[in-house]
Amino acid sequence: MRIAVLGTGMVGRVLAARLAGLGHDVVIGTRDPEATLARTQAGTMGTPPYARWQTDHPDVRLLAFPDAGAHAEVVLNATQGAVALDALHAVGADTLAGKVLLDLALPLDFSQGMPPTLTVANTDSLGEQVQHAFPETKVVKSLTTVFCEVMVDPARIPGEHNIFVAGNDDEAKKTVEGILEQFGWPTGSILDLGDITGARAVEMYSRLFFTLAGRIGSLELNINVVRGTH
Amino acid sequence: MRIAVLGTGMVGRVLAARLAGLGHDVVIGTRDPEATLARTQAGTMGTPPYARWQTDHPDVRLLAFPDAGAHAEVVLNATQGAVALDALHAVGADTLAGKVLLDLALPLDFSQGMPPTLTVANTDSLGEQVQHAFPETKVVKSLTTVFCEVMVDPARIPGEHNIFVAGNDDEAKKTVEGILEQFGWPTGSILDLGDITGARAVEMYSRLFFTLAGRIGSLELNINVVRGTH
Repeated sequence: MRIAVLGTGMVGRVLAARLAGLGHDVVIGTRDPEATLARTQAGTMGTPPYARWQTDHPDVRLLAFPDAGAHAEVVLNATQGAVALDALHAVGADTLAGKVLLDLALPLDFSQGMPPTLTVANTDSLGEQVQHAFPETKVVKSLTTVFCEVMVDPARIPGEHNIFVAGNDDEAKKTVEGILEQFGWPTGSILDLGDITGARAVEMYSRLFFTLAGRIGSLELNINVVRGTH
Repeated sequence: MRIAVLGTGMVGRVLAARLAGLGHDVVIGTRDPEATLARTQAGTMGTPPYARWQTDHPDVRLLAFPDAGAHAEVVLNATQGAVALDALHAVGADTLAGKVLLDLALPLDFSQGMPPTLTVANTDSLGEQVQHAFPETKVVKSLTTVFCEVMVDPARIPGEHNIFVAGNDDEAKKTVEGILEQFGWPTGSILDLGDITGARAVEMYSRLFFTLAGRIGSLELNINVVRGTH
């Protein structure tokens, strides 16, 4: 599949490398490829400069947002939530029209420290905002509930645990579920939350996720939904 | 232990009956006991009139909020979130001073339909508001993440699953954990989220809880936190 990953940070790199390793034709989209490649400083999360990662992943091409979008059948939004809508507008509504957009960005605000608050919550969500801004695009919210290394390799966490999908288009959710299964998520572990308003559920869950991560001292955690017998 | 349960709805009744069954000296607090007993209509959730429940539970006394608070060593807030602060002010700050207050109310707003939104979220929580309004009271947020029948009988859901506590006072959390263990929560299932700001995590999780409940068609569900090995 031709896949564009938007965002050159840790999350985008982990997803792009894994998807390329699975045999997909993967590009990474960024605002200004030359500027991204020229950067020599580490990222905010201590990630090495992109150019160094690029050298180790020659199979993944770096393109400007519109070119990355044009390349792709499926687009993954792995940008920081605060800039997600800008990045998607840079790709272009026409380019995104009719395509599956897997939105895994969280609208995190770290200005109050840890755990982060959200820039949108409760009565709206980033996933819904993206769907509203790009009505011709089939937005699916997924993967936001786990750390990026777990997204692409769920066996890092032992035992049963779940991943969620939410979106208005059932075919698009099937496409995303196919990618999740390639990552290693068992079919039964994928829980469908219904339409895109389900994005609110997984985005608001992030507060519990980051609170637990702070207590445990690790981002490598997930939840297993257990149902009663009544 | 002398326990006051605030709130005469389904949640308050389930908790009061279970605590009385465990041998505690339990009262239920309400604004106007005579009015509560005089009601003949079913509640919004289809609960029978309180007087009928009272007949079946003669060991639980119904008292006005201040009297209920005065009776108690531990107070459980099982009111509807929208009226929780009013109910606690009716009990009285002096009466609540120094006491353990287990706050299990969710600030739910059903005016937009299901799943409910929250009247406070993201940058604050009901648990934090209660602690702020009653600084002399030892507020512990817990039990809000499961349906009331599961609160008092976690074995209704098979396998491992967790319950959370959050609060500023470690001794108060120990008291609450003791009640949870009497309900049947294994010691290892109780996860401490730290201070009262952890209330935000469990209250915001409610969106995922109610979304899942809507998909499953049952409120009898919970989550098990699974940690990675990395």
